[in-house]
Amino acid sequence: MDRRSFIRASALGGSAAAASALAAPAIAQGRRTLTLVTTWGRGLAGVHDSAQYCADAITAITDGALTVDLKAAGELVGAFEVFDAVSAGQADMYHGVDYYFLGQHPALSFFAQLPFGMTFQEFNNWYYHQGGMELADNLYGIFGLKAFPAGNTGPQSGGWFSQEINGPEDFQGLRFRMPGQGGQVLGKLGASVQNLPGAEVYQALASGAIDGTEWIGPWADESAGFQEITKTYYTAGFHEPGPNLNLTVNREVYEDLPKAHQAAIEQAARASNLWTMSLFMANNSSALQRLQSEGVQIREFPDSVWDAFGAAAEEVAQEPMDDPIYAECYDSYMESLRSSAEWISRSSGTFTQQRNRVVGI
Amino acid sequence: MDRRSFIRASALGGSAAAASALAAPAIAQGRRTLTLVTTWGRGLAGVHDSAQYCADAITAITDGALTVDLKAAGELVGAFEVFDAVSAGQADMYHGVDYYFLGQHPALSFFAQLPFGMTFQEFNNWYYHQGGMELADNLYGIFGLKAFPAGNTGPQSGGWFSQEINGPEDFQGLRFRMPGQGGQVLGKLGASVQNLPGAEVYQALASGAIDGTEWIGPWADESAGFQEITKTYYTAGFHEPGPNLNLTVNREVYEDLPKAHQAAIEQAARASNLWTMSLFMANNSSALQRLQSEGVQIREFPDSVWDAFGAAAEEVAQEPMDDPIYAECYDSYMESLRSSAEWISRSSGTFTQQRNRVVGI
Repeated sequence: MDRRSFIRASALGGSAAAASALAAPAIAQGRRTLTLVTTWGRGLAGVHDSAQYCADAITAITDGALTVDLKAAGELVGAFEVFDAVSAGQADMYHGVDYYFLGQHPALSFFAQLPFGMTFQEFNNWYYHQGGMELADNLYGIFGLKAFPAGNTGPQSGGWFSQEINGPEDFQGLRFRMPGQGGQVLGKLGASVQNLPGAEVYQALASGAIDGTEWIGPWADESAGFQEITKTYYTAGFHEPGPNLNLTVNREVYEDLPKAHQAAIEQAARASNLWTMSLFMANNSSALQRLQSEGVQIREFPDSVWDAFGAAAEEVAQEPMDDPIYAECYDSYMESLRSSAEWISRSSGTFTQQRNRVVGI
Repeated sequence: MDRRSFIRASALGGSAAAASALAAPAIAQGRRTLTLVTTWGRGLAGVHDSAQYCADAITAITDGALTVDLKAAGELVGAFEVFDAVSAGQADMYHGVDYYFLGQHPALSFFAQLPFGMTFQEFNNWYYHQGGMELADNLYGIFGLKAFPAGNTGPQSGGWFSQEINGPEDFQGLRFRMPGQGGQVLGKLGASVQNLPGAEVYQALASGAIDGTEWIGPWADESAGFQEITKTYYTAGFHEPGPNLNLTVNREVYEDLPKAHQAAIEQAARASNLWTMSLFMANNSSALQRLQSEGVQIREFPDSVWDAFGAAAEEVAQEPMDDPIYAECYDSYMESLRSSAEWISRSSGTFTQQRNRVVGI
């Protein structure tokens, strides 16, 4: 009897004789520790918290029958090694953002972030109800993985710059940290783009190895300390309006679990998805006020820069279209995005505009 | 040994002898059926689905140790009786929207919806991270209840009218269905307001007992069939920008559960919260297109009507301020709302505006 069958039989009761013979060892045998690696340095504000939420929730609702042991970036494998490590079975699951792994497959963009793409709500509409989940199952299945959206940072800031950005030409030669398709967009504007995991960004900026960086938003950025190095901060960015963080499980490990434990992982990830998004969105306004009180200058990109971002983003998004999986994801993603955006604009867009006008927010 | 102690001992293993003596009856004794009543007629689009999602998720992740049996409105108690029924222990839990129960306590508004109040994201920022949960624990505790946000419809439509609304005077004498503080606002504009559960609205409108109604949004409204009766439909409304649906458990029942089952309920409710919101938001655009193709005329309230809504909503929101619990919730809610709204406008507001301009959405 393999472990999975045993656990199921145990949960359903089996015979009294079987229970008598196996009860004590069954408990030990039925408990399992899953190793969770992450793309986040231990303690990184919000993102590490999201991974820890998943670990704690799964452990709690299975009463420890699945105990999730979180190893932050560098504790077992490096931030950029988690995809391959879980695919190979070196760890059981990872929490991270999958635009770090576009070398493995370009379609991973759709399950992390496309520049000018979906916000948090638009992504979840697509993922849970308009075909995103099925496309993810196919894609991640290629790598022996099973992914669950498990967090979101909300719209990310344009980032920290050593000088003001007055036109697209100001990106020429700029050494800037930005991962994923967003980084490819800045590359088209002439920037020298670097992809660094979060835990390494502060040092790179402080040492002058890069001229600027985006990370997440006011709260996480303040916690990282970038305001100690430069005071020029752009808020709304084009690159990550709602990046999805996945909890991704080795597929063999997942399929070997009893159905109840599979359900525990799925529901905990969904709970974390909303809890994490709310954590960032609840903390950003007060962090932005603190940053301003420390002398940080808040800026917005001018329309000419948004236009240049848009043209380059369209090029970048089209480049992998020869890949049929990418193309299938693209069509489904764009159809859902346009549909969601229309109702959101007509409902919460109009409401928020009227509320803020009438109430004076 | 009470049931709670027994389940915990069983989960932790106990001795082999105890397992031998009790294994077979333990399984039966450890399994528990919880009765879930709702404010929704069976099958009502989205809202019944949300309640069913909670029931299924809790049952699945506990492997049936908690089996949730859903009784829709009228099957055990009526829609407007669920609060008292669960408070009294006649049922174990309910799924519903708590502005139906402002007679029990006016502060329930904050955990359902305030007119001109919080959207889905703003509510969850407050609830999970800025004190909302602790205030809810106190309030629901008065009634022997424990509440968990477990769904949201997203911004609700202004509703279905027998004639166009060109100014606030058009509400004078209008017989209109709207629950909660929103209904009180229309009352201040001279409407004759009725509070009907969802399952009874179609018949009231079709029979001419009311002149108009709001329900939810394009998808749920289409499913209810209001377009068969009138063709004048207002989209963005002032009254429910993001109504929260609670899964609320009898507190004694909840506290009697093992910690793992408590965690299962909490995580399932959070998962349902996001899943439900996404369900509505994914379906509204296409439903709106179908409604238009059937001849429904889409309208928006003019600014003069929004202004009148705003003035009356402020009066209504202030009326219960003599109640210290209401006042405490109000202060916390408004502080969080203003803080959340600021960052949302600066981040996703600016991004969405630029994206839709640049990409042409």
